[in-house]
Amino acid sequence: MESIKVFKIGGNVVDNPEALAAFVRDFTSVSGSKVLIHGGGKEATRLCSRLEIPTVMLEGRRVTDAATLDVVTMVYAGLINKRIVALLQDAGCNAIGLSGADADTIRAVKRPSEPVDYGFVGDINSSSIRAPFIIRLLEAGLTPVFSAITHDGEGLLLNCNADSIAMSVATALAADTDTDVELYYCFEQKGVMRDISDSESLIPLLTAENYPALKEEGIISGGMIPKIENALKAVSEGVRSVYIKNAADILLPSGTCITSTK
Amino acid sequence: MESIKVFKIGGNVVDNPEALAAFVRDFTSVSGSKVLIHGGGKEATRLCSRLEIPTVMLEGRRVTDAATLDVVTMVYAGLINKRIVALLQDAGCNAIGLSGADADTIRAVKRPSEPVDYGFVGDINSSSIRAPFIIRLLEAGLTPVFSAITHDGEGLLLNCNADSIAMSVATALAADTDTDVELYYCFEQKGVMRDISDSESLIPLLTAENYPALKEEGIISGGMIPKIENALKAVSEGVRSVYIKNAADILLPSGTCITSTK
Repeated sequence: MESIKVFKIGGNVVDNPEALAAFVRDFTSVSGSKVLIHGGGKEATRLCSRLEIPTVMLEGRRVTDAATLDVVTMVYAGLINKRIVALLQDAGCNAIGLSGADADTIRAVKRPSEPVDYGFVGDINSSSIRAPFIIRLLEAGLTPVFSAITHDGEGLLLNCNADSIAMSVATALAADTDTDVELYYCFEQKGVMRDISDSESLIPLLTAENYPALKEEGIISGGMIPKIENALKAVSEGVRSVYIKNAADILLPSGTCITSTK
Repeated sequence: MESIKVFKIGGNVVDNPEALAAFVRDFTSVSGSKVLIHGGGKEATRLCSRLEIPTVMLEGRRVTDAATLDVVTMVYAGLINKRIVALLQDAGCNAIGLSGADADTIRAVKRPSEPVDYGFVGDINSSSIRAPFIIRLLEAGLTPVFSAITHDGEGLLLNCNADSIAMSVATALAADTDTDVELYYCFEQKGVMRDISDSESLIPLLTAENYPALKEEGIISGGMIPKIENALKAVSEGVRSVYIKNAADILLPSGTCITSTK
């Protein structure tokens, strides 16, 4: 394989049929081996509401009780995953939709209930990923499409964070192949911005060298800090580059590139 | 591969956690290569009812409008499929849950809207099945677990009949390998009975030779006629044997065996 590109899309794509159709078209045009990881979007929240299951968010994360686990399994691993796979098949991309339980591809550990009980939420790292199986699928010309539902290997399904899955899959693939692995976080912004209100303020390149000063100056702050630091960690562990960019621009050389200066 | 065994389970197993746990344990003990196809059970009907989506059945088949298609995709391809896969993984069976859209494994044709419009319901036959991919999974030691959700290759998901999928998968595998393929229909009865009220009246063997008389005498009637005739067709097309038996007895030499006398 020439390279492996791992893409992560979230709610701004999966909640919007036009955006999803456009992404599917662009993603199919991306050459070489690729993997897609999708978040859940608002559909699970809407279904919970229709079923009168309360949605509880703590620090931006969904608290997943047993009823909510059923809903996210249905919506993420069922509806959204199969909808994306069917659209990719129509576009000519031979996609295979998987949860982490399938072929034991991604195994998670249920998060401890202290200090905060998130319920059926799992944590993963790159050693959770069965990279050789993913590589066999890629070598067979298939495109794996993962929802963020995984399992603990003991019969329990777990709701995981799609960003973490994308990061861990990319890192595990980089460790298991000689191929260049690139990770693309696709969202609604152009990339990492110096000033969110100024669309011309994109930071095109982040490295372990220029990042500390940008953090120190407060230019990179809040929720962007863990994202960048995880991306720098992935790069230090063998991922060639991590891109943070707009989901509508995946075929364009745009967005923020986080890479090593080596 | 020594042999391939294709199992189909329905509502009496998937709706009952104890029956499902017992089946998973037994199925894991079955030696050699195997495939599981599961029906949907009553969970989709319950979810439709909670969402106030009317359930319309025509001649025992669910009429699948767009809202119902979303529900069956969620329940069959999401909740039930991933629940079974997680249980099999826990039992030590390396299962991979798939819909027909995944890797384009099973492609269906939307049923014509005349004379009866069933909505998003698809029909398949053995040429719908991408047998080489299933064989590659089996050779890699994986156990494919299919829900009855497939696609038309043009972006549309379709609700199919799990019995037909099981039959078509078995027939396609038999045509594509030199390996013996056996098909097991698992349900709540002991097998095909001469008299449904007499538990000692099991018919142990059905062939193209003894079936016509049993049909003529009215011993085999109603919904059992198409099942037996489809099984005889599968046998004539290369499936070694079709078993109709109780889901709790899959490790026992019991039930009705439909086979060729050749």
